[in-house]
Amino acid sequence: MTQVDPAVADAVAAVARRSRLAARRLALTPRRLKDQALLAMADALVEASDEVLAANRLDLVGGREAGLSAALLDRLALSPERIVGIVEALRELVGLADPVGQVVRGSTLPNGLRLRQIRVPMGVVGMIYEARPNVTADAAGLGLKSGNAVILRGGGAALRTNGVIVGLLRRAVGGAGLPEDAVQTIDQHGREGVRALMRARGLVDLLVPRGGAGLIQTVVREAQVPVIETGVGNCHVYVDGAADQDKALAIVLNSKVQRPSVCNAAETLLVDQAVAAEFLPRVLAELGQARVKLHLDGRAAALAPAGLAWDAAAESDWLTEYHDLEMAVAVVDGLEAAIAHIQRYSSGHTEAICTEDLRRAQAFADQLDSAVIMINASTRFTDGGQFGLGAEIGISTQKLHARGPMGLAELTSTKWICLGDGQVRE
Amino acid sequence: MTQVDPAVADAVAAVARRSRLAARRLALTPRRLKDQALLAMADALVEASDEVLAANRLDLVGGREAGLSAALLDRLALSPERIVGIVEALRELVGLADPVGQVVRGSTLPNGLRLRQIRVPMGVVGMIYEARPNVTADAAGLGLKSGNAVILRGGGAALRTNGVIVGLLRRAVGGAGLPEDAVQTIDQHGREGVRALMRARGLVDLLVPRGGAGLIQTVVREAQVPVIETGVGNCHVYVDGAADQDKALAIVLNSKVQRPSVCNAAETLLVDQAVAAEFLPRVLAELGQARVKLHLDGRAAALAPAGLAWDAAAESDWLTEYHDLEMAVAVVDGLEAAIAHIQRYSSGHTEAICTEDLRRAQAFADQLDSAVIMINASTRFTDGGQFGLGAEIGISTQKLHARGPMGLAELTSTKWICLGDGQVRE
Repeated sequence: MTQVDPAVADAVAAVARRSRLAARRLALTPRRLKDQALLAMADALVEASDEVLAANRLDLVGGREAGLSAALLDRLALSPERIVGIVEALRELVGLADPVGQVVRGSTLPNGLRLRQIRVPMGVVGMIYEARPNVTADAAGLGLKSGNAVILRGGGAALRTNGVIVGLLRRAVGGAGLPEDAVQTIDQHGREGVRALMRARGLVDLLVPRGGAGLIQTVVREAQVPVIETGVGNCHVYVDGAADQDKALAIVLNSKVQRPSVCNAAETLLVDQAVAAEFLPRVLAELGQARVKLHLDGRAAALAPAGLAWDAAAESDWLTEYHDLEMAVAVVDGLEAAIAHIQRYSSGHTEAICTEDLRRAQAFADQLDSAVIMINASTRFTDGGQFGLGAEIGISTQKLHARGPMGLAELTSTKWICLGDGQVRE
Repeated sequence: MTQVDPAVADAVAAVARRSRLAARRLALTPRRLKDQALLAMADALVEASDEVLAANRLDLVGGREAGLSAALLDRLALSPERIVGIVEALRELVGLADPVGQVVRGSTLPNGLRLRQIRVPMGVVGMIYEARPNVTADAAGLGLKSGNAVILRGGGAALRTNGVIVGLLRRAVGGAGLPEDAVQTIDQHGREGVRALMRARGLVDLLVPRGGAGLIQTVVREAQVPVIETGVGNCHVYVDGAADQDKALAIVLNSKVQRPSVCNAAETLLVDQAVAAEFLPRVLAELGQARVKLHLDGRAAALAPAGLAWDAAAESDWLTEYHDLEMAVAVVDGLEAAIAHIQRYSSGHTEAICTEDLRRAQAFADQLDSAVIMINASTRFTDGGQFGLGAEIGISTQKLHARGPMGLAELTSTKWICLGDGQVRE
């Protein structure tokens, strides 16, 4: 690891120190004021939406000139409808309970000490993401509601859009009487700024990378501040011999097709050999009709309906998060073989089993070490909103601190407060 | 960062893979069997205590030859009494509830999905520590009870002692029908083994360094696996103008003197100028009598009783964790100045306030961002056993995942299990 440009390191450290001061004020700000600021942020986005869209058009022109992929341009693009979505997400935060101050545990000890463990904000939260301007407002809103100051790095392609959004959010926060530095960006420092942020030990309490596998791996490898790994989802659906095949068909299709570009979409289908001859021709035909590109192992291929397009699955297919209408399919020798396959290839995000057999459902849930296990339900339900947690800042695939959808509570730490009356230790 | 010796990296990876297999079995092992194994581990230590003591004598000879400090030799030394302590700690674990399987949250969603978030083991937990053979058994016991496989690195000075202890614990675990690889050591690979363990991404779920600040900083800086920072405790006691001075005197003395070598001992005393003239001469005299070496700021020095030995506090004193009968003392201009001092110099472990004023007590607890705040109680209570959490694996001073004393629950992650009946997403 080479040194970070000292000028950039100093600039980012100065940003982080302003965030720390803002975070100290936010930690003591009651919910009512935070909710007022969230509403002001939402109103500001509505009022300045023309300005945001104009900046976004410039980013899109730049992106096309730079040869960004159609998928990336789509993630970058805002529209009046998408701005409405961002605004509504901010307003929904107002309705959520404030996690700060919640008592997690507590007791009175034999010596009379009154012990409480309460939720407190993390402090300064860094967010590194790519080309999705909605994350700018989501992260600022979730951060503010949970009492954290956020430092945003939104990627070069969305520079103008994020610049306008950050500016108006800061003014809204300031106008509501809270510190503007609750929301800061280091976009102006480019990639070197990201490297400085990753090394800002003691200045950044938590760093959340959100984006492609490459970005996340870089941050996890290089960061010297606490990181939560998010979102790589090589999710599986296993259709057991004891499945209700109609339910299973609907679950496979929904998991793959409903929104293939996201991390909770399924990538691999495993079918128990006991029902493969009956189930596979049906599901493959439906996936084919839904224009899903299929990669079949030998046993699945032998059961493919005539006329279906497919190719032979390679080893790499079992490891791939396609993010697209594309799926790997294998026939396995029952539950244990399905579990072994998933243990070998999964990224630990979400795995689904379709079965009516209680013991098999339980064994699948017990033996697989993934963030979420779905029993007879679509993998697409792994989502903070769907889980009833409110908005989410990402889906953690690590085991430390947060696992699965990360909502407001996952942006907090805890503090012990012990009330005594002169107790000393014997 | 240079490359790790490939042969050592391979050997440590092989150890970690065996740990993974053991962890998968342990995760499914019911409490009854884990408790039987803990009792077998305790019995084995009792039976082999002569062998353990003999190995420890050899380590002590080696340590003296290598010129280890008296403090380090003391931490290395075992005695029949210390072995009884280790054995009792293992047996106490039997009485604690199993954290695995505990339901943390749960609900039935509007679509009928039944959601449960349950505690699951972390998996493979690495523990890097120095010269304290009791940690070997503590970590193995806490790990086993919480369903984790542990990989231990106990430092070169305790090589023989730890080798004997690990060997007998492994046999006891195996004899109880659980996988011997629940407990492994990489001591034979020396410092290069530590480096390999810190980089074993995907093989180690959590690494806990426990020891001096140098060790902990190295691990935090170099590790590419999730780490929990433990134990650096630059703890403060602030005696407010509204303190009950008798209580305050007892709390200051207990916090400093009762066991000065540990992380929850106080290092700095701050006294409100409003009571300094009255309180300081008393407390300084008592600290002097307890043979505490004193580093006084100018205002405290002006109030030192005649004949008391002290020196002038330097800037470095406010940052120092003495781990000894030594204390820095300052007079401050009330609560806000005390808070500012602590914010500037604290390591975020434990801070105590002595006051009978409710608003000041609350402000101190609200504004300081440390793991534990004591109101009218000794800093020495920051301890898993004292908090009623049972044994502890260390005291976390970071905000991610665990903060303060880390017991069994802190050695677990969670998993979401969603039971459906064919639900798909609209």
